[in-house]
Amino acid sequence: MPHRYFASELVDGRAALTGADAHHLAHVMRAAVGDTVPLCGPDGLEYTGTVTALVPGRVEFAVSGGTPTRAEPGAEITLYIGYPKQGKLEDIVRHGVELGAARFVPFFSRWCVAAPKNEDKKNARYNRIAAEAAKQAGRGRVPAVLPPLPDITALCAALARERYDIALFFYENGGAALRGLVAPGQSRRIALITGSEGGFAPEEAAALRAAGAVTVGLGPRILRCETAPLAALAAVMTLAGELE
Amino acid sequence: MPHRYFASELVDGRAALTGADAHHLAHVMRAAVGDTVPLCGPDGLEYTGTVTALVPGRVEFAVSGGTPTRAEPGAEITLYIGYPKQGKLEDIVRHGVELGAARFVPFFSRWCVAAPKNEDKKNARYNRIAAEAAKQAGRGRVPAVLPPLPDITALCAALARERYDIALFFYENGGAALRGLVAPGQSRRIALITGSEGGFAPEEAAALRAAGAVTVGLGPRILRCETAPLAALAAVMTLAGELE
Repeated sequence: MPHRYFASELVDGRAALTGADAHHLAHVMRAAVGDTVPLCGPDGLEYTGTVTALVPGRVEFAVSGGTPTRAEPGAEITLYIGYPKQGKLEDIVRHGVELGAARFVPFFSRWCVAAPKNEDKKNARYNRIAAEAAKQAGRGRVPAVLPPLPDITALCAALARERYDIALFFYENGGAALRGLVAPGQSRRIALITGSEGGFAPEEAAALRAAGAVTVGLGPRILRCETAPLAALAAVMTLAGELE
Repeated sequence: MPHRYFASELVDGRAALTGADAHHLAHVMRAAVGDTVPLCGPDGLEYTGTVTALVPGRVEFAVSGGTPTRAEPGAEITLYIGYPKQGKLEDIVRHGVELGAARFVPFFSRWCVAAPKNEDKKNARYNRIAAEAAKQAGRGRVPAVLPPLPDITALCAALARERYDIALFFYENGGAALRGLVAPGQSRRIALITGSEGGFAPEEAAALRAAGAVTVGLGPRILRCETAPLAALAAVMTLAGELE
């Protein structure tokens, strides 16, 4: 499939690429004025862009079309991820984008091994990884990676604010079977919550339940903290009919 | 949970640990004669072992019990994996063990980027990784990683020989929805087939279909070759009721 470009601006039938995407199109693909390129808009739609101008660091287009991308799932899934050690969050973002997640929100919790450090810089890097993965996976939209939440209280507040159709809390001590909770067309806005290496403290699990999250189990085997969010995402996408 | 030991020998109520496991139990855990230790047998059952002798490199036990491990899924899933580049097979084995795979069989195919090299040494390493992952995941049995098959013809022969209840061929060009093909208690011995970075040549896809494999799609997004087997495994385990 052709390289995908995500337009950073798209207003009134005109769009532009900047930064690395503009460089790639101008210098690697050697695009010229008049060439047409498939563009993904910030609205998640696919457009045909006709190059109107090439200036250093910027390519401008006239756009037409605007059709929904088949690659974007109907279910909009936010992954809340207990902040893991080392580079594991990068892998979770990379693979989570492929599996169709809409948004990533890391959070710190009592038993996290990782501690906040240079989070602004790391967040920029996570978002670059998400953008690159979105291109490679053929996504119609670049999923955002939000700055980390400081604790479970902030996570509960986010759940209350976002009013998801269903929030699924994957607890290492087990819970309900996912099969009874997700079906095609049943929930559009879904939150998945998985823990860091240390798992959840009992009072954190209680707080999530009190915030309306449904406690779910992922079976009797112990999943690593980088495996659980992707297994949860694949399982939910399958049951929602979005992985077929 | 306590460290898990996989007995290398278990006959007539007597068992032994050797190698790194014996070292760990004797020198890290400082076990003494008379101590009891949970042991996983080569038969997949869990036993209670009472230490009867400690000699350098070997710990001997009298065993009792022998109960099925709750962590072992009822579905026995063999993952046939198109041989990926770099260290990706290690990650697939590691996470596949957590997700409950019974066996791993890498295979080469026409569009593989990887080529066979030092496969005996690599196979020993993959099996060490599987054993370590089995302990950490709390598995009752160590999944085996078989030596790689040379081509799709050998893979088709393996499918014919093994007579799986169902063989699912995850094809990058799409296929049937998995949801209609797997349900709890429906299939016990299941084969999953996913490709390498290069995917499958059309004649390879046709050969797999002719060998009785059912062609399945994993949705409109492009999954990396290290994501696809784990997504397929999580999806099948979910639908089989084994991830709850």
